[in-house]
Amino acid sequence: MSTKWCRFETGDRRCWGRIDGDAVLAADGEPWGPHKETAERHALASVKLLVPTVPSTFYCVGINYRDHIIQAAKRRGVEPQFPQRPDIGYRANNALCAHEDPIVKPKDSGESFQYEGELVAVIGKRGRKIPEDGALDHVFGWTIGNDVSERTWQRADRTMWRAKNADTFKPMGPWIVTGLDYRKMTTVIRLNGEEVDRFATANMIHNVEQYIAETSRYCTLHPGDVMWMGTDGSPRNMKPGDVCEIEISGIGVLRNRVVAES
Amino acid sequence: MSTKWCRFETGDRRCWGRIDGDAVLAADGEPWGPHKETAERHALASVKLLVPTVPSTFYCVGINYRDHIIQAAKRRGVEPQFPQRPDIGYRANNALCAHEDPIVKPKDSGESFQYEGELVAVIGKRGRKIPEDGALDHVFGWTIGNDVSERTWQRADRTMWRAKNADTFKPMGPWIVTGLDYRKMTTVIRLNGEEVDRFATANMIHNVEQYIAETSRYCTLHPGDVMWMGTDGSPRNMKPGDVCEIEISGIGVLRNRVVAES
Repeated sequence: MSTKWCRFETGDRRCWGRIDGDAVLAADGEPWGPHKETAERHALASVKLLVPTVPSTFYCVGINYRDHIIQAAKRRGVEPQFPQRPDIGYRANNALCAHEDPIVKPKDSGESFQYEGELVAVIGKRGRKIPEDGALDHVFGWTIGNDVSERTWQRADRTMWRAKNADTFKPMGPWIVTGLDYRKMTTVIRLNGEEVDRFATANMIHNVEQYIAETSRYCTLHPGDVMWMGTDGSPRNMKPGDVCEIEISGIGVLRNRVVAES
Repeated sequence: MSTKWCRFETGDRRCWGRIDGDAVLAADGEPWGPHKETAERHALASVKLLVPTVPSTFYCVGINYRDHIIQAAKRRGVEPQFPQRPDIGYRANNALCAHEDPIVKPKDSGESFQYEGELVAVIGKRGRKIPEDGALDHVFGWTIGNDVSERTWQRADRTMWRAKNADTFKPMGPWIVTGLDYRKMTTVIRLNGEEVDRFATANMIHNVEQYIAETSRYCTLHPGDVMWMGTDGSPRNMKPGDVCEIEISGIGVLRNRVVAES
């Protein structure tokens, strides 16, 4: 059974909702905790979708697909280096923005301003020292992330702080879908309607179970935390006016337009 | 005027409180937003202090004092490299623990398990593109952090995730003090009562105003966010049973005992 959960804003209220066809049914409480549906019902098209979770810790896998590593190494004229073990990184909440929110390209950013389409695992159950074979029990559901990156800054910043974490550089959404098998998904990326990348989502060097097991050896995972799973392929540049869509089968489409910083 | 704010737990409730001598006066609301004091009053010694803020984004300066860089370079037999500009990094909320909470040394961690005493700026006012000369208006107050680090992992982990962000590796507290001039503070670190480091807190390569200005060029700072400002000197190893105290003048003492993972 697959269920679609979103966070939305209507008037001055923000709440969780379960999506039923073209309607949203408002709920009290978080979907991974005690919650109940209310009598409140809205047309999905009438509400503003929010980022589906603001994590306590925002985990992100840096490099996790072979072709992405090979292409990046080729551009830099170096030998590709594949990670020998799951090596988790972080992104920052200030950078989050929702489905249909603009990606603001900073004035002083360069041409090499790129999307990265990623599967996102949303944690639903607190855990530490989680074994691989129980790891998926800790995933509440799945959403989509766009790990927007400024490549000149990425080479210059010791920590990639502004290269990957400037405001609006982390679109996530549109919603969370439960009950899916991530091993069967396809990720498709479109720029202005043209397909620019397509890959088997599960074709990771280290899979979701391995990342959850390794991270939780040292770090407690909390409900609402997210783990972005990396991208494949060789991203193209985006410029103001471009629309980037990331579609993952079973989840939906995350769509954002690039605008120039005013 | 200087005010001392804490977060505390009493029974099954968690709330904010203003410290008045040896008492805590409970408050409704966050100290940097609309709030009011209640009639509830507790002996400070009777409540469990919590981490004084759980940030939305947890900023941390990696290297920001000359002597710390020189000592670290000497140990590795390389030339010291000083940062040319403020280059912010991140830590993770799972690692936070409060004053008097144990620092748990993981079973498979090595001998080079060290404290780093740091001044922490707590943001009180949302801001983007904050000028240096207005930066301190965005600081609500000051607290203390211990950037516990496992050095073998620090060299091995591409992102320092477990080296610096394993559970309990980020003690912060005991409370937040407003109305202080950080340029006049002294940081003193004691291990089992013996003074092991002492430095002028303001003796930073890039100061708080510069970090706030540079970070907010790209990233919106939010109330409750923290910026850990780096450490000086040459930390020693800690082993289970050791008690590490970090004292910063005007703020107080952050005290934590190291325990072995069971």
